[in-house]
Amino acid sequence: MTEINRQLVLRSRPKGLIAPGDLQLVEAPLPSLADGQALARVKYLSIDPTMRIWMAIDSYLPAVAIGDVMRAFGFAEVVESRHKEFRKGDKVVGFTGLQDYCVIDSADKRGSFRKVPPVPFLSDTAFLGVLGINGLTAYFGMTEIGKPQKGETLVVSAAAGATGSIAGQIGKIHGCRVVGIAGGPEKCKWLTDELGFDAAVDYKQADWKEKLAAATPKGIDIDFENVGGEIMHEVLERMNLHGRVVLCGLISGYTKGDPALENFHMIIVKRLRVEGFILIDYLDRFMEAATQLGKWKMFGKLKSRETIVEGLEKAPDAINMLFTGGNIGKLIVKV
Amino acid sequence: MTEINRQLVLRSRPKGLIAPGDLQLVEAPLPSLADGQALARVKYLSIDPTMRIWMAIDSYLPAVAIGDVMRAFGFAEVVESRHKEFRKGDKVVGFTGLQDYCVIDSADKRGSFRKVPPVPFLSDTAFLGVLGINGLTAYFGMTEIGKPQKGETLVVSAAAGATGSIAGQIGKIHGCRVVGIAGGPEKCKWLTDELGFDAAVDYKQADWKEKLAAATPKGIDIDFENVGGEIMHEVLERMNLHGRVVLCGLISGYTKGDPALENFHMIIVKRLRVEGFILIDYLDRFMEAATQLGKWKMFGKLKSRETIVEGLEKAPDAINMLFTGGNIGKLIVKV
Repeated sequence: MTEINRQLVLRSRPKGLIAPGDLQLVEAPLPSLADGQALARVKYLSIDPTMRIWMAIDSYLPAVAIGDVMRAFGFAEVVESRHKEFRKGDKVVGFTGLQDYCVIDSADKRGSFRKVPPVPFLSDTAFLGVLGINGLTAYFGMTEIGKPQKGETLVVSAAAGATGSIAGQIGKIHGCRVVGIAGGPEKCKWLTDELGFDAAVDYKQADWKEKLAAATPKGIDIDFENVGGEIMHEVLERMNLHGRVVLCGLISGYTKGDPALENFHMIIVKRLRVEGFILIDYLDRFMEAATQLGKWKMFGKLKSRETIVEGLEKAPDAINMLFTGGNIGKLIVKV
Repeated sequence: MTEINRQLVLRSRPKGLIAPGDLQLVEAPLPSLADGQALARVKYLSIDPTMRIWMAIDSYLPAVAIGDVMRAFGFAEVVESRHKEFRKGDKVVGFTGLQDYCVIDSADKRGSFRKVPPVPFLSDTAFLGVLGINGLTAYFGMTEIGKPQKGETLVVSAAAGATGSIAGQIGKIHGCRVVGIAGGPEKCKWLTDELGFDAAVDYKQADWKEKLAAATPKGIDIDFENVGGEIMHEVLERMNLHGRVVLCGLISGYTKGDPALENFHMIIVKRLRVEGFILIDYLDRFMEAATQLGKWKMFGKLKSRETIVEGLEKAPDAINMLFTGGNIGKLIVKV
């Protein structure tokens, strides 16, 4: 066992891609353990797009502080323990950080470390991917929000990534037509030939929008969105009525400007549900609503005010009033 | 009864506000009725922001064709009938169009006309507002999507408009703290003094963002969004985790450029549900997911691939690979 702990420390917040010096490799002594702590040797580190957000801004987790070891999820093995729950030799996953050794502390309220059970046929690295952050993300995103139904069309962006590749396969398991969007022929071939996607669209090809249209002849019912920007826009254009967008990531924006300026970024960080609606979908329930509204109105719980413009010929001006703030309450033209 | 029918016909699609000539007033003869038709005198026209969309683009309804009478919802009285369901004297609401007289046709599959019941204390115009499009929109938007809970904070934009003013009052009925955003002191005063809103924020004041923050000390749980743009952005900034955004309208964008280019417009038109999520909310269900994923993996239903980069010092380059498309499947650093 080496006596030093190499660490990657955040020195500056990156602009665009990470530049040399944003993360600095330093050597620290191995920490000595207090009661309730365990020391673990980091074996594997999960590399995820969200790390770029942690480097830049406060989001669903606070930004990593300048001077701190960069946050990362990883797989580690306990080498020394004064912690009740972990023994030497235990394999764990949790927020190890980008370093050789990490300390597991029972005072850590987040309790981010958990033991990995010995599962036959599964490699250690599976606990970072298919059974780790990515698999779990794909699972909950698809089952809780996407709610795939047999025969529906699912489109996954960044489909050859760790999360997208699993989200798409979960769609296949549920009987969806699954179309992946990825960059380059190798990734696309992997999606269709190995993972069983029904089609893959290479967004680096000039005609990718036509290819996407051809691959989704019945429109799109579910968008498992990892990318944002132009790709998401094109997918939204092809969505069917009442479709679901599982907003998992917006990787196209992470290295551009301040991602906090993007409304869709806030929808993710705050786990908002944004739902568009139009009254015509509720035609068969008009009586219910009108009855309730009428009661409220009669009991004085609903007040209303009207701005009435006289004359059919004034209707164009009346429409414009809506956009110049001219009316209060209901705007009506008396013919 | 006059023998002519004045109509406002769409001549050109407006740029920005409606300009003279976009809608032309013409005089047509009164239509003669065939079997299954009724003629109704239009009394009141509902003036709604969505009309600006109908003039410009195909959306949830096709754009009004150039040369057609402009579409509008209105209140009318039957003056002559060869229609089984409507008699002379019946009061109706439906898509009358911007004209003096409209024909109700039993062949109209949309069946857009319905009789208005005689309700005591309610004026005819109430069927265009509080019991009409706006009331119904506020009702279904709040009950089906907003789902207001006692003690939550609701923010309504365009709060002094026909829909917003009712949405806010429905929030009060459900026990919410209700904050309206509107333009000018008269509108704001109406919201707080007459309608019982807890606060009103005048977005025309320079310090409106600070006022919004002060009025929503516990953040915002529900956004009944009618405006979009900068106002929506500021509201989203103050949303609480797991908040709901009832996306009803984006009036700030209707007179600017092509609203179809806006992703939020598509969410409305297609009635999409867009939901952001982050894995950490599902911590207590990790076992369930990992067990299912593990089964799928063992039965060959889930395939995965890893790109492994060796060496802790390579981690910064590895993070960048995610943004340059360098990896397929799960990206891992072996320490």
